[in-house]
Amino acid sequence: MNDPHILSAFDRDLEGIQALIMKMGGLVEVAISDATKALETRDVELAEQVRKNDAAIDALEEQVNIEAARVIAIRAPAASDLRTILTVMKLAGNLERVGDYAKNLGKRTSALVQMPVIEGAPGALRRMGRQVENMLHDALDAFVQGDVELAIDVRDRDEEVDQMYNALFREFLTFMMEDPRNISACMHLHFIAKNIERMGDHATSIAEQVIYNVTGEIPDEERPKGDNTSYTFETME
Amino acid sequence: MNDPHILSAFDRDLEGIQALIMKMGGLVEVAISDATKALETRDVELAEQVRKNDAAIDALEEQVNIEAARVIAIRAPAASDLRTILTVMKLAGNLERVGDYAKNLGKRTSALVQMPVIEGAPGALRRMGRQVENMLHDALDAFVQGDVELAIDVRDRDEEVDQMYNALFREFLTFMMEDPRNISACMHLHFIAKNIERMGDHATSIAEQVIYNVTGEIPDEERPKGDNTSYTFETME
Repeated sequence: MNDPHILSAFDRDLEGIQALIMKMGGLVEVAISDATKALETRDVELAEQVRKNDAAIDALEEQVNIEAARVIAIRAPAASDLRTILTVMKLAGNLERVGDYAKNLGKRTSALVQMPVIEGAPGALRRMGRQVENMLHDALDAFVQGDVELAIDVRDRDEEVDQMYNALFREFLTFMMEDPRNISACMHLHFIAKNIERMGDHATSIAEQVIYNVTGEIPDEERPKGDNTSYTFETME
Repeated sequence: MNDPHILSAFDRDLEGIQALIMKMGGLVEVAISDATKALETRDVELAEQVRKNDAAIDALEEQVNIEAARVIAIRAPAASDLRTILTVMKLAGNLERVGDYAKNLGKRTSALVQMPVIEGAPGALRRMGRQVENMLHDALDAFVQGDVELAIDVRDRDEEVDQMYNALFREFLTFMMEDPRNISACMHLHFIAKNIERMGDHATSIAEQVIYNVTGEIPDEERPKGDNTSYTFETME
């Protein structure tokens, strides 16, 4: 896939599957963007749309898996090509899960519009979503171009998402303690924040698979980790 | 894998991978059991152990993927055998994620021991964990034996897990509204409940893949769904 002039049958098949992955990536980016926009503007109709659109993302994942299996079966690819195909299937799995989180966000938005507004939170969540959207976009670009440097950059940016999550988490705690009537809304918003943070983890996972696929080495586990609420929780009592 | 008397080279390879899956399943069941026990008995040491043991589960998933890729490469399996191999890889992915949730439970237990006790919750979470453990066990049995009926049974039992989650969720809301000092502990416990509910979803996913692998048909999407908190939230204000 690096030399466009001499394409084997396998390379052409692979390009077909990559096109499906990019299409999936596009739909997932729109889902994140629409879901966080619907949350901020309290647009139930748009939230509904995000939920409905998830079926197309799921269908594309299924198509990737069927195509991948077909290519493995008819081409019996060599080890390194096989690794690429398996990576592609994993990426499709990552994208499908991000789509699920966006769908869940849509679902929660439909509930949230009936609850008190938590000042500042929807805007912050939309910014967080935008950050993840960009990471995802770059991770897929890194995949198609085999760009390890860009993949490493994506991986590093996940720390900012984790920090955004931590900051929001503290804000929600404060809102809940101030007024019990905020509890329901804050629990929803907290789940949304956690789900966007998990979307970031998936973008990171895609970036790490790109690194592995190109270099053959699993990136150092000790990447910067900004989500430490499981620990800091106790210091906040 | 259905006729033990005439085993092809592929069948023998597949049995080897299945053995890895069963080993993974065993470790994951222990992780769920230990994690919920540690939560109930406030045993930080056991919680630590669960966190450490997760590396062995991750390593087994890696081994399954490597083995699966090797088998595909050297045996060039026919369509239906290929489907089985791809299923096995997905199952390993499901088990790995359940292991991650157990690890997260261990992490949260370490934080929870410093917070007020929420009466009844740890016991209820342990019962929920036991239910999921049994589902997982049966789902893997169904896989090895190609037992569609058992797989359907597992899938149906997920509704109970969802109902347990709903009940707990309402309890946490009450505890938080009663006393803001309960908020931190309840947020941890809520995440734990949600994570156990997600473990149930993975057991269900395994069961559905068994059904698909045996019958070639994806089970009807409209399975009984008990988690409706995203909707009922608003009626609780």
